[in-house]
Amino acid sequence: MEKNVLGTNVIAQIGILVHDIEKTSQAYADFFGVENPGWSITAAVESAQTQYRGERTEARAKLAFFKMGSLQLELIEPDEHPSTWREYLDEHGEGPHHIAFRIEGMKDKVAALEGGGMPLLQKGEYTGGRYAYIDTMETLKVIVELLESDKK
Amino acid sequence: MEKNVLGTNVIAQIGILVHDIEKTSQAYADFFGVENPGWSITAAVESAQTQYRGERTEARAKLAFFKMGSLQLELIEPDEHPSTWREYLDEHGEGPHHIAFRIEGMKDKVAALEGGGMPLLQKGEYTGGRYAYIDTMETLKVIVELLESDKK
Repeated sequence: MEKNVLGTNVIAQIGILVHDIEKTSQAYADFFGVENPGWSITAAVESAQTQYRGERTEARAKLAFFKMGSLQLELIEPDEHPSTWREYLDEHGEGPHHIAFRIEGMKDKVAALEGGGMPLLQKGEYTGGRYAYIDTMETLKVIVELLESDKK
Repeated sequence: MEKNVLGTNVIAQIGILVHDIEKTSQAYADFFGVENPGWSITAAVESAQTQYRGERTEARAKLAFFKMGSLQLELIEPDEHPSTWREYLDEHGEGPHHIAFRIEGMKDKVAALEGGGMPLLQKGEYTGGRYAYIDTMETLKVIVELLESDKK
């Protein structure tokens, strides 16, 4: 595989899986002395077009975002439908799930990674952009997420 | 507990546990198109004064550091002696172990955290500073590491 497929090595986000986003968000807010940002829920499959391991999935998650220096810490409380969030939480328990990078050219990058033996785990759309989780567990020991913003 | 005991919310480092630091370092170097930084080993207990759960431990680890944007990604391959590294690797498998923050006033901060129900897991000295891992799993779902540099 071509080196530096992502075109960046700047970690933009750390994602942490939790069972109770309200409780853990408040714990972060208290610990770091910042405001509780509240949570939002990912869009339904009709608009998010969520796919997990190649199959359409109804999975959604509650998300809360904290600004921690130059990066974002994301808390994720998944629902019961199949997703990398649900699977990883069931297998590993609460804790870090991914590191994320802001990229351009999602389709080409995902194809290059898949060609290099790093399969797409899950993808979806959100207002203003899209994400893809790549199965980099074997090589990097953590899941990598690609984040692409629409051109303004 | 007082809010914002750390005095910062800037994540300085992410630590990832691995079984084979040479293999995983090379995988990171290849993936991100950067130089393999090589690894170093933590000092022996005589100089590191390593303590794990209140007991002196001979534990050492091989460490490799990658600069990823404004933060450091640390790969950690622990030896077989008791440590938070060994315990977490045995329980959770390879993957993220901690997020680290640069702080001042290590003793006071550790005491304040312990008073707030977040026990010291492990501590040690290194050339130019010291570290402490805090058991924040219950509340924050990830271990927090404090890093203090000696005044220059």
